[in-house]
Amino acid sequence: MNYSIIRYILCRVLEFQALFLALPCLAAIWYREEAGWAYVVVSLCCLLIGGVGKRKKAKSTVFYAREGFVAVSLSWILMSLTGALPLFLSGEFASYTDALFETISGLTTTGASILSDVEALSKCNLFWRSFTHWIGGMGVLVLILAILPLAGGYNMHLMRAESPGPVVGKLVPRVKHTARLLYEMYIFLTVTQIVLLLLTGMSLFEAMTLSFGTAGTGGFGLLNDSIGSYPVLSQAVITIFMILFGVNFNVYYLIRAKKPMLAIRHEEMRYYLGIILAAVILVTVNIHGRHASLFEDFHHAAFQVASIITTTGYSTVDFNQWPEFSKALLVCLMFIGACAGSTGGGIKVSRIIIMLKQVKNELALLIQPKRVRQVQFEKHIVSKEVLRSVPLFLVTYAVIYIVSFLLISLNNLDFTTNFTAVAATLNNIGPGLGLVGPTGNFDAYAQPAKYVLMFDMLAGRLELFPMLLLFAPSNWKRKQGSLSHRKGLWKGVRNHASDGI
Amino acid sequence: MNYSIIRYILCRVLEFQALFLALPCLAAIWYREEAGWAYVVVSLCCLLIGGVGKRKKAKSTVFYAREGFVAVSLSWILMSLTGALPLFLSGEFASYTDALFETISGLTTTGASILSDVEALSKCNLFWRSFTHWIGGMGVLVLILAILPLAGGYNMHLMRAESPGPVVGKLVPRVKHTARLLYEMYIFLTVTQIVLLLLTGMSLFEAMTLSFGTAGTGGFGLLNDSIGSYPVLSQAVITIFMILFGVNFNVYYLIRAKKPMLAIRHEEMRYYLGIILAAVILVTVNIHGRHASLFEDFHHAAFQVASIITTTGYSTVDFNQWPEFSKALLVCLMFIGACAGSTGGGIKVSRIIIMLKQVKNELALLIQPKRVRQVQFEKHIVSKEVLRSVPLFLVTYAVIYIVSFLLISLNNLDFTTNFTAVAATLNNIGPGLGLVGPTGNFDAYAQPAKYVLMFDMLAGRLELFPMLLLFAPSNWKRKQGSLSHRKGLWKGVRNHASDGI
Repeated sequence: MNYSIIRYILCRVLEFQALFLALPCLAAIWYREEAGWAYVVVSLCCLLIGGVGKRKKAKSTVFYAREGFVAVSLSWILMSLTGALPLFLSGEFASYTDALFETISGLTTTGASILSDVEALSKCNLFWRSFTHWIGGMGVLVLILAILPLAGGYNMHLMRAESPGPVVGKLVPRVKHTARLLYEMYIFLTVTQIVLLLLTGMSLFEAMTLSFGTAGTGGFGLLNDSIGSYPVLSQAVITIFMILFGVNFNVYYLIRAKKPMLAIRHEEMRYYLGIILAAVILVTVNIHGRHASLFEDFHHAAFQVASIITTTGYSTVDFNQWPEFSKALLVCLMFIGACAGSTGGGIKVSRIIIMLKQVKNELALLIQPKRVRQVQFEKHIVSKEVLRSVPLFLVTYAVIYIVSFLLISLNNLDFTTNFTAVAATLNNIGPGLGLVGPTGNFDAYAQPAKYVLMFDMLAGRLELFPMLLLFAPSNWKRKQGSLSHRKGLWKGVRNHASDGI
Repeated sequence: MNYSIIRYILCRVLEFQALFLALPCLAAIWYREEAGWAYVVVSLCCLLIGGVGKRKKAKSTVFYAREGFVAVSLSWILMSLTGALPLFLSGEFASYTDALFETISGLTTTGASILSDVEALSKCNLFWRSFTHWIGGMGVLVLILAILPLAGGYNMHLMRAESPGPVVGKLVPRVKHTARLLYEMYIFLTVTQIVLLLLTGMSLFEAMTLSFGTAGTGGFGLLNDSIGSYPVLSQAVITIFMILFGVNFNVYYLIRAKKPMLAIRHEEMRYYLGIILAAVILVTVNIHGRHASLFEDFHHAAFQVASIITTTGYSTVDFNQWPEFSKALLVCLMFIGACAGSTGGGIKVSRIIIMLKQVKNELALLIQPKRVRQVQFEKHIVSKEVLRSVPLFLVTYAVIYIVSFLLISLNNLDFTTNFTAVAATLNNIGPGLGLVGPTGNFDAYAQPAKYVLMFDMLAGRLELFPMLLLFAPSNWKRKQGSLSHRKGLWKGVRNHASDGI
């Protein structure tokens, strides 16, 4: 393990954190809030430590997959620990644990809150909560890659470890340019949403914070009833943008590159939109008669379905009160999640499709054992590595799920609450059912359970493996075999990187 | 598809069913119950139809994997349909659907009941319910293979399709002898349990029916409180035999073949016993103080854990009232299930171990992508086919689970009930939590939901694929490619069969 390069990266992350923390200061100045001082202090501390720490250059530039995973998971933990400080120092959270839960929930774009009264928070804290969604959505290391001149090969390792999906594809040959393109499109969509929300009559503060929450598929709102009391038109704009941010960004790249036909034929997007359409129709039929008109049934069905499948977690109604079928369908959507290469969480549509195609093949093989069959996805034959790793992702996911579920059950809350609390955090959604439903919050859990759920949020956002590898003893050995073996390693990663979609 | 050979097999199954149905007649004669006539009539009908139908010899003896799957799933459906008739004709069930639910629940060794008052049933019906567990536990086609002189190669296909586990191993080179050995050991263990239960003071009727339920890991009892009102010693005997019937029968073969050291080193058995031990300790600690003494806490913990992990479903207490952690742990055990090659259901311990080993490898591969790693199980390297199919089994399992869960949610019962109802039927356990807990029953569901759960029970017992293939259109085509292709098929199966554990 090359510790010095990880130290260097963490110091750069601290510098960026200092920059991020300066933004809520502006909000505090505008609204003349004293809580802003906490942001000033923490921001300066981050700048100082980061600035001093990075001066000592890394001893070696050796950088492999393991360094990538460790750097990413430690960066996220560092962002969380420092990001929680101003929330805690503002005195508006009962404990540092609560502030940390809220920050991790923000950064991982979960949107699960321990607050029963969101409206009591000061504006700068509200702004920071929402802004963490925006950073976490596309990822801080992707941003660093887009801006800093980090040299050579290790860019791809960082990108792979932070970006969601079974295969991380580069849009363009250079990682740096890919990262820039992603952030360009991300900013473009966010600004468009802000403008549209302003047109529906929102204040700039509301439009910005809610757009950050939508863009990162986060879900922190400004009011206790989430999005329930905004006008229907604002809700509709948010519905559409939730769906847009759940689309694989490759689609937007194709549109930008003036290949609209390729964008329309994007397989994952088609399945994703198909699932949304089917779910909205089913829920509308199931809840028919609960609202004033069929249009309102449809409107709320569409909002909730879009919010859950993209793992945003906003709500316009308390779907905890819906009939069981709609609730069950929403729980299933929680697991499916959004597209790979989007800001959404969950297992991801592409993984689900690949696995279903594998099952279809497996059934065919039972009838005709010797026929060779390949799995095609996005018009390419899926590589053996991906076919092996995707179902194992599901197994790993199930293991983390079960262990978390057992641990938080020690808190003795009911089955539905526990089951959906893990679903809502591991998939980075926010609300679940029962006590953690849209009108509830996660404060019902004691501190140990909160730490389990914090781990789940981080594991969900970073797609399990980086967080698990933090606990693998073999990962922490300083020496790592011979150089020739390392070269082999290196080649393997290059091959993998080049088979991106 | 070779329809004529399937017709022939189904006719033989009907003849065996006639034989099975004669046994409750004896119980009816002994207890002088009129309900016995129903068994006489149905038994004679089965004998007649089977006897006439099998006279017309099969046109061709071509028999491949697909014929195996179809023959097995149709046999089980036929056994269910005919087995439900006397229950329905006796007038003690509200509808044929209810009688069918009870019969499928019996044959698949689930033990889920739609009856609120079991004690009102006549003795012959009680006997038949329990006896279906015993037949279903080891499998009717395995019994036919053990007794009838079925020629040549297709034995293995039938055995594979009916027996549980990722790899079906033959104990001895010939399938026929394997089937006989399995039934010998099965009968020996059952008789031993009957004798021991008699010694604890049970009547012969009680000892036989409860032993059938234990042997098949079924769970139908004679009293409304399941096993709750029997003496502690009887309960303890049942605990031990539930655990014994959940062990891979290979272990008993090794003991019989005087290789005790190999039996002790059996990997799956060791993990299975380890999980039971850990779960019993955790539950005992968690429920400590709920019963009169620590011993009673331990006794009930052991009974419930053994009952759930072996997917039997007997209960001595209403674990629905236990603290959430114990309930959550029992739900997890529902999914793990017993050993492959036992009479128990669930995902099976061996599949879980293989998948966990694969995940461990996958994590190691992330750090060192080029190192070749193999998965070892029971001191053998696990074949590529098994490594591919085991995680896909989990995916298929999840798909059936989710679809069933959604469908029965239309019934608008609560989340916990719906979630555990599918768990209890797909894993062939019996009771779940909520309304379908140990003191509840499945009559809360309407008829359509009952049919979904019936499918789940059959799919669970036959390990998903045979039931799914019934719905694959390509499976039903009469012609199937060239002969050379068929030969290839054949070889593939032989290879597969020979890599048994």
